[in-house]
Amino acid sequence: MATVLIVSPHPDDEVLGAGGYIKKRSKAGDRIVVLTVSGHLPPLYPPGVYQKTLAEAKEAHKILGVAESVYLEIPATQVHTTPVHELNGKIAAAVAKYRPQTVLCPYPDRHIDHRAVFDSALVATRPVGQGVCVEMLAAYETLSETHWNAPHIEPNFTPTWVVDISAEMDAKAVALACFASQIAEFPHPRSVEAARALAMFRGTQAGFSYGEGFHVIRMRS
Amino acid sequence: MATVLIVSPHPDDEVLGAGGYIKKRSKAGDRIVVLTVSGHLPPLYPPGVYQKTLAEAKEAHKILGVAESVYLEIPATQVHTTPVHELNGKIAAAVAKYRPQTVLCPYPDRHIDHRAVFDSALVATRPVGQGVCVEMLAAYETLSETHWNAPHIEPNFTPTWVVDISAEMDAKAVALACFASQIAEFPHPRSVEAARALAMFRGTQAGFSYGEGFHVIRMRS
Amino acid sequence: MATVLIVSPHPDDEVLGAGGYIKKRSKAGDRIVVLTVSGHLPPLYPPGVYQKTLAEAKEAHKILGVAESVYLEIPATQVHTTPVHELNGKIAAAVAKYRPQTVLCPYPDRHIDHRAVFDSALVATRPVGQGVCVEMLAAYETLSETHWNAPHIEPNFTPTWVVDISAEMDAKAVALACFASQIAEFPHPRSVEAARALAMFRGTQAGFSYGEGFHVIRMRS
Amino acid sequence: MATVLIVSPHPDDEVLGAGGYIKKRSKAGDRIVVLTVSGHLPPLYPPGVYQKTLAEAKEAHKILGVAESVYLEIPATQVHTTPVHELNGKIAAAVAKYRPQTVLCPYPDRHIDHRAVFDSALVATRPVGQGVCVEMLAAYETLSETHWNAPHIEPNFTPTWVVDISAEMDAKAVALACFASQIAEFPHPRSVEAARALAMFRGTQAGFSYGEGFHVIRMRS
Amino acid sequence: MATVLIVSPHPDDEVLGAGGYIKKRSKAGDRIVVLTVSGHLPPLYPPGVYQKTLAEAKEAHKILGVAESVYLEIPATQVHTTPVHELNGKIAAAVAKYRPQTVLCPYPDRHIDHRAVFDSALVATRPVGQGVCVEMLAAYETLSETHWNAPHIEPNFTPTWVVDISAEMDAKAVALACFASQIAEFPHPRSVEAARALAMFRGTQAGFSYGEGFHVIRMRS
Amino acid sequence: MATVLIVSPHPDDEVLGAGGYIKKRSKAGDRIVVLTVSGHLPPLYPPGVYQKTLAEAKEAHKILGVAESVYLEIPATQVHTTPVHELNGKIAAAVAKYRPQTVLCPYPDRHIDHRAVFDSALVATRPVGQGVCVEMLAAYETLSETHWNAPHIEPNFTPTWVVDISAEMDAKAVALACFASQIAEFPHPRSVEAARALAMFRGTQAGFSYGEGFHVIRMRS
Repeated sequence: MATVLIVSPHPDDEVLGAGGYIKKRSKAGDRIVVLTVSGHLPPLYPPGVYQKTLAEAKEAHKILGVAESVYLEIPATQVHTTPVHELNGKIAAAVAKYRPQTVLCPYPDRHIDHRAVFDSALVATRPVGQGVCVEMLAAYETLSETHWNAPHIEPNFTPTWVVDISAEMDAKAVALACFASQIAEFPHPRSVEAARALAMFRGTQAGFSYGEGFHVIRMRS
Repeated sequence: MATVLIVSPHPDDEVLGAGGYIKKRSKAGDRIVVLTVSGHLPPLYPPGVYQKTLAEAKEAHKILGVAESVYLEIPATQVHTTPVHELNGKIAAAVAKYRPQTVLCPYPDRHIDHRAVFDSALVATRPVGQGVCVEMLAAYETLSETHWNAPHIEPNFTPTWVVDISAEMDAKAVALACFASQIAEFPHPRSVEAARALAMFRGTQAGFSYGEGFHVIRMRS
Repeated sequence: MATVLIVSPHPDDEVLGAGGYIKKRSKAGDRIVVLTVSGHLPPLYPPGVYQKTLAEAKEAHKILGVAESVYLEIPATQVHTTPVHELNGKIAAAVAKYRPQTVLCPYPDRHIDHRAVFDSALVATRPVGQGVCVEMLAAYETLSETHWNAPHIEPNFTPTWVVDISAEMDAKAVALACFASQIAEFPHPRSVEAARALAMFRGTQAGFSYGEGFHVIRMRS
Repeated sequence: MATVLIVSPHPDDEVLGAGGYIKKRSKAGDRIVVLTVSGHLPPLYPPGVYQKTLAEAKEAHKILGVAESVYLEIPATQVHTTPVHELNGKIAAAVAKYRPQTVLCPYPDRHIDHRAVFDSALVATRPVGQGVCVEMLAAYETLSETHWNAPHIEPNFTPTWVVDISAEMDAKAVALACFASQIAEFPHPRSVEAARALAMFRGTQAGFSYGEGFHVIRMRS
Repeated sequence: MATVLIVSPHPDDEVLGAGGYIKKRSKAGDRIVVLTVSGHLPPLYPPGVYQKTLAEAKEAHKILGVAESVYLEIPATQVHTTPVHELNGKIAAAVAKYRPQTVLCPYPDRHIDHRAVFDSALVATRPVGQGVCVEMLAAYETLSETHWNAPHIEPNFTPTWVVDISAEMDAKAVALACFASQIAEFPHPRSVEAARALAMFRGTQAGFSYGEGFHVIRMRS
Repeated sequence: MATVLIVSPHPDDEVLGAGGYIKKRSKAGDRIVVLTVSGHLPPLYPPGVYQKTLAEAKEAHKILGVAESVYLEIPATQVHTTPVHELNGKIAAAVAKYRPQTVLCPYPDRHIDHRAVFDSALVATRPVGQGVCVEMLAAYETLSETHWNAPHIEPNFTPTWVVDISAEMDAKAVALACFASQIAEFPHPRSVEAARALAMFRGTQAGFSYGEGFHVIRMRS
């Protein structure tokens, strides 16, 4: 049994970016751990908001077969003001505890929390110390935020790895639909239809019906 | 009345890349000229192949409201062996004749003809001589070929301009379907479904239902 | 009447980057709003410094036909330590209030305030919510700071849009000269002569006598 | 048993770029096919030159466990003047015949043959037709030529995949030493010592003693 | 006495890109060699055209203090169809003959001859064989052609090395004016005024009155 | 006598990145100043840790011929939370005091302190005010941290300047070995062997036995 660690800035990013892959690997008998760093917490959001999203995430994780869900509960937009060694330490601790072969992190994009999480995930998975267990480190795309990076000023997502999720597309759509507080109606950029269109685009360009694209950062074999 | 010149390597590229935009501008009363450089001609292809595609193109152009269709009929995969000053001269002549305000060319990608056409279109639209009429030069994406560029070695398409084609999506799909010899069934990377998925992805990320993305090369105003 | 919103890190950046464009659009009857985020304020600068620059900016804005000048008055070099949601919120509020079709922001460069303002402007103009009014988002270059980005490590400015300011060059030069506290004598990198040379270079390369170059980030039509 | 296809511009490139990986996979029982496109042939080289290199390659392939060695024998520096459809066709035929899961091609670099071979390998492995068997397409670095690309003008090699060749380093060194006609004495850029230094550098940065670095172009799973 | 070799695609490129540097080094007593690869020769141009430009170049070289002017006389737009080993060989021969410490070549840009010359210059100056004498290899910008590269698709010039030509600006302007057949009136992109504006822009951004910018490709010390 | 200023984030970075160059220039009679910004200080590290590294640095500096060693003693991982104007001011003060012709700074990489130091060094050496003395600003690579930047998302180091350190390699190795608290045994990515392998790789690719590679940021002459 292999272990996959998905580092997610906020509840729903892991499903947007890797919901199909999570389902595929959990069906194959692998252990999936989702580490969610932040959320819509006070003081910027009223107390109930996060609880609602958390409940949605739990439902989605159940559908996808997530084995363990860990929540760091740092308030949204404050991830980058958390002391760097502290955030790095928490993600490194998860790597040390679960010893994943595969780690997926967010692509650094328009959402400042995504950048901070990307930075810490990169440090925690360096190929020294606890990081030597990691055979694949890749970044997933987060619908809308990733595609709002400034073209040709900031990095722009182009996948180097596409996973066939044709058999998992429906489960991903159902899991996404759990996030009633986050996912809106088409033509919203973060709708189930938009997610399905992206998956069809990524998939067909790689020879599949539906796919999820990743940017391979460091593969070791 | 403004003029739009679409430079297309082969019949169907103009529809894949800009079919919705063509329809939108022709509906608005503008003149659309499509200059097709190459085609599946002898000696690499039997004589009938090109005629079939040509007939399909004519049907598609009618649906989209193309005013003039010009065909240079250079055999496919031999565009880059055509003397450079000759190819440049032919595209420059079209710019001089039609005096377009907007010129769309293919993104330089995996198909070697696309690269040669891109190069010549860039030369023909330099902001001197006949090129001073051009206010917008942009590159369109060609489903599959554009997305098969090697990531991070060759240029990778990221749009800076998205046109709302929600009202033209159906016409684009019908025009694409005309190319029975070129367009295959889903999940083929060059199917109508894949084109629709790409349009939904590009559109939703820009706040529309369906969109076409372009890379702005040179805008003058 | 259309509205143009120029987001400026400090008084004078808006004139360096887009003074000609501002004049051109105001002459055409459009409403120009300049939102200046920061300035040479205490505690790093003595109280009078900012007041002087403010007076200079008001004079320059009058010359260029700026309709509304808004000042957030965050002390220089402290923009990036302002809570992100707060800065984002202030720029988003301006977008919501003025509903601009065109937004110009600084290119992210050597001045840390320029980067923070760029980041917030990008968030405030996402094509959702108040941002759907924005049809053009582009970044202007700020003489010296933009050209001091580390080549090939940080992004380097190359324009995709050049505006003909031949008829506005003199007004831009006069407006720049208002900033006696900021603009120095040639050959200083931030002199009127240097600004004129840049405008002649950008202009002639695009077929004009004088021009202002912009990096198109997101165009929607 | 899986199949690995190494597309090599000239005899020795396959060993410089992937000698350790070839040995590792052949030891594991996989089938290794090396397709060499060009060589130091007449008219630019005297007849005996190519024969000598060919004999060296055969010796090296034996050491590394190459199962099949195919030679297209296009004269060096004339690969790019071979008709594109012809070269593409030959590489595509090898893909169709051997049905490799892994294809390695040269990084497009200072040697014009490397670029032509890269281009054709990319076309032959598109995820349609015969290309759907390919699960991994990656580019290897060729000591000296790859590192002579113009920095920040042409693409510069940075690995995303590092293979541990600690146990194969000696075999790679012996295989390289077979190429007496191609490999020179240290400090020549193409010496066994330089190859060992590169392998130690790539390896240690990924947590190994010795490694080979690859640029992942397209991974499908 | 050191030697500087300027590889120029056509007469005038060497002056546009490095006229000030040539004058500065010749004044300092160094030997300047200009190797001009191509020209407006038959069959594309009438016989007299090249002779006129040649006479202009000789006059300009005299003003700048060029010691040796070598002309390969390959017809313009046909440089890339010259056999690669032949063009490489000719430039390599010049490197072997003059043993320059500094080599300047054109930036690969919109003019196809510039790309072919760049490619050959890069091969001829590799740090092996005759190339070991070269301590600095850099690319100069050619007004207009260099700035017509497609932004963010093709490489875009950003200087890493700026030479103070304040004392040589006038000589450069006079030398440029010699090319009556090539240089047009302002606001033409290739006018003396445009060249002066570019020099003032490059210079002031580096702390000089006038400067020439270069992209350092390979510096060895 | 010329002055070289090496800005180092932590003790050992200056030796990893430029130990050979320091030795070469000190042997040539130039003055070498090392400005170390940070270190393993309390509160994150126990008090003795920094003292140990400091002693190691002093020993290494003696071997390499460093004339002046300045320590700012900002705790590690807290450099980016130091007020920007304060850090900039301290580095600018060193530039003003020592008036170096050459300044070397770290490449911005995986270590957040390296990024903050890079940013401040870039501001302090702008070609205005105290910065006009600087004729060469370049970034050195720091074994492991620099090579752990995410490929094609973050900038990836490719040298444009290689210095021959064949005669200084042994001194560099001895100086590195002084850092018993920082340098580990092979195959650790930061071992003396790994440093030697990198130097042999950089050197041989530039025509030397051993070399140090730098990214030229701004050269003025």
